[in-house]
Amino acid sequence: MKDYNTLAVDARKKNGGMIFTGLKTKLETIDDLATYYTPGIAQPCREIAEHPERSKQLTIRKNTVAVISDGSAVLGLGNIGPEAALPVMEGKSMLFKQFGGVDAFPIVLATQDTEEIIETVKRIAPTFGGINLEDISAPRCFEIEERLKEALDIPVFHDDQHGTAIVVLAALINALKVVEKKLETVRIVMSGSGAAGVAIAKLLKTAGAKNIELADSKGMVCCTRDNLNSQKQELCSLNCGSLADGIKNADVFIGVSKAGIVTKDMVRSMNENAIIFALANPTPEIMPDIAKSAGAAVVASGRSDFPNQINNVLVFPGLFRGLLDKGVTNVTDAIKLNAATALANLVENPTADKVIPLPFDENVAPAIANSV
Amino acid sequence: MKDYNTLAVDARKKNGGMIFTGLKTKLETIDDLATYYTPGIAQPCREIAEHPERSKQLTIRKNTVAVISDGSAVLGLGNIGPEAALPVMEGKSMLFKQFGGVDAFPIVLATQDTEEIIETVKRIAPTFGGINLEDISAPRCFEIEERLKEALDIPVFHDDQHGTAIVVLAALINALKVVEKKLETVRIVMSGSGAAGVAIAKLLKTAGAKNIELADSKGMVCCTRDNLNSQKQELCSLNCGSLADGIKNADVFIGVSKAGIVTKDMVRSMNENAIIFALANPTPEIMPDIAKSAGAAVVASGRSDFPNQINNVLVFPGLFRGLLDKGVTNVTDAIKLNAATALANLVENPTADKVIPLPFDENVAPAIANSV
Repeated sequence: MKDYNTLAVDARKKNGGMIFTGLKTKLETIDDLATYYTPGIAQPCREIAEHPERSKQLTIRKNTVAVISDGSAVLGLGNIGPEAALPVMEGKSMLFKQFGGVDAFPIVLATQDTEEIIETVKRIAPTFGGINLEDISAPRCFEIEERLKEALDIPVFHDDQHGTAIVVLAALINALKVVEKKLETVRIVMSGSGAAGVAIAKLLKTAGAKNIELADSKGMVCCTRDNLNSQKQELCSLNCGSLADGIKNADVFIGVSKAGIVTKDMVRSMNENAIIFALANPTPEIMPDIAKSAGAAVVASGRSDFPNQINNVLVFPGLFRGLLDKGVTNVTDAIKLNAATALANLVENPTADKVIPLPFDENVAPAIANSV
Repeated sequence: MKDYNTLAVDARKKNGGMIFTGLKTKLETIDDLATYYTPGIAQPCREIAEHPERSKQLTIRKNTVAVISDGSAVLGLGNIGPEAALPVMEGKSMLFKQFGGVDAFPIVLATQDTEEIIETVKRIAPTFGGINLEDISAPRCFEIEERLKEALDIPVFHDDQHGTAIVVLAALINALKVVEKKLETVRIVMSGSGAAGVAIAKLLKTAGAKNIELADSKGMVCCTRDNLNSQKQELCSLNCGSLADGIKNADVFIGVSKAGIVTKDMVRSMNENAIIFALANPTPEIMPDIAKSAGAAVVASGRSDFPNQINNVLVFPGLFRGLLDKGVTNVTDAIKLNAATALANLVENPTADKVIPLPFDENVAPAIANSV
């Protein structure tokens, strides 16, 4: 494997940031200045002053999404703060443009207070056509997203929650085809009850799953436990032991938690034709080849060096492409289910090694955009 | 004259916004994703988490300035709000890139409250290498700029104030050479005591001017008047009549106020070899040809269709180029004076029709950057 760490730092030592402000036309003559700046610029300003909704056609709002983070839950790095989170938000902005043709701009925030984040995003929202929240820790992320969705007339989407949930549902739809089981009847055990875990559990339920049991760092999220936050109260079950206890006889394991917490014995304790999605990044709950050798029928992870890479880039660029093009301002459950189905359908004949398209499949973003 | 209004609207109907997010490298292979996004991206994040100041080398902060407005005092349009102000901020961002190679991004704010603006800019500041405040009405703009300068470790510059003041000082230095008068001894009367007027008066004083008398919409800003704000108290004089009274026997008139308020008779009442800077936009206090016909020796305006166009684009792109390249975090009076001198010096032999370089003069931005 190449030394991506060094490559990443070297690229930035040379370039500073990896995105730049491009001009759709050069300013080379007095006429250019008069058209694209003063006095011509006054006319679009007047039109928008009279009809504020036209800002979504006549300005960068038409195609620009903010990638907003407080740096509290960045990749596998944790709470590293806004400055250190900025490279990730730039990278995300690159993916938006490369895969969805969406102009994205990172905004990192010098506050981790829920109220201040909500206020700040509301105040800068007139600049943008959509808000992609990123790497904001649970449980604050739930309230921040909910309240911004209510307050703003542009789409608000917390990718760590819903982007992940949509890709997982798509992969699971196809994995279940491979093992010939039904979403409605399988028993699903999950590890991780942060942003991604909660959103996955909710979306799977919305899609028809009936038996989902969640674990967190203390073991199974059992309804008799004290001090469960409201999200966990909603998703708790009567399964009360450790994850190793809980995973017995499960059909599906989905991990969005921590490296190495699933053993071969735990995989062997699952039902036959088990499905394992070990999505902790960069090191999964169990390495895909180990899970396979312990008898799992379908294995997915976040890694590009094994089959079935669960990668959010499969969703957010195409999703915002569709939202912006169609003027949709609210990402509903129906939109999420449609996107998951569209993504799953791109794999014509799912096999154990192919339940989800590759990140560079050019059919993906248009299909997701069309599904909106 | 072309119909720039229609051209401006048509360009935006076709393009939406006039700027876009460009990528410094395409993402075309799994290696690209691994380098510019995960897992490689973690390494610059770790470096910045350990040494936060490195965000100014390793991210877009190295070359990115926010163009921030609340839409309260936009061009000649007034308080049109954030959505309607966005085209102007995009245009400004274009100028930053075209003339200074600075990546700029517009942020328009859904608040006009001084405290909320200060809070919001502080919270988004970790994204940027500099803050250009724009079209924020006086007197709020003074406090907002002052407090942000104190709070942030990146340069903060209110262009309507200081950009204008620097160009005016540069043009005045050369105009005084043409008429062979001295800044220290001329009598200067100004009309307009908003952001630009106050900043011009202060910078001219710093540069050595001793006799400056200011007018506002009520006439001369006389120290015995009631309810003067603190800026006006600082700049008031014993000249207490109307502008027509005040301008008598002045050597220099500088208007940053309102179309058509200066008459031929008022120009005739000034001292011989009068200098007139009629900078109201798009229609000056007096049209340059009329001022000339009334005997003014040197006339400047904001217009591109007459000689001596006073245009802020002569300063802010090069100034921020210099600030970013040299890591300067505070725009001091010395920096402003140096920039004005550098700009004035670009005109080797000033004449009545050439006291300031043209906006497209390629020597301007590098000279200003070097002056920092």
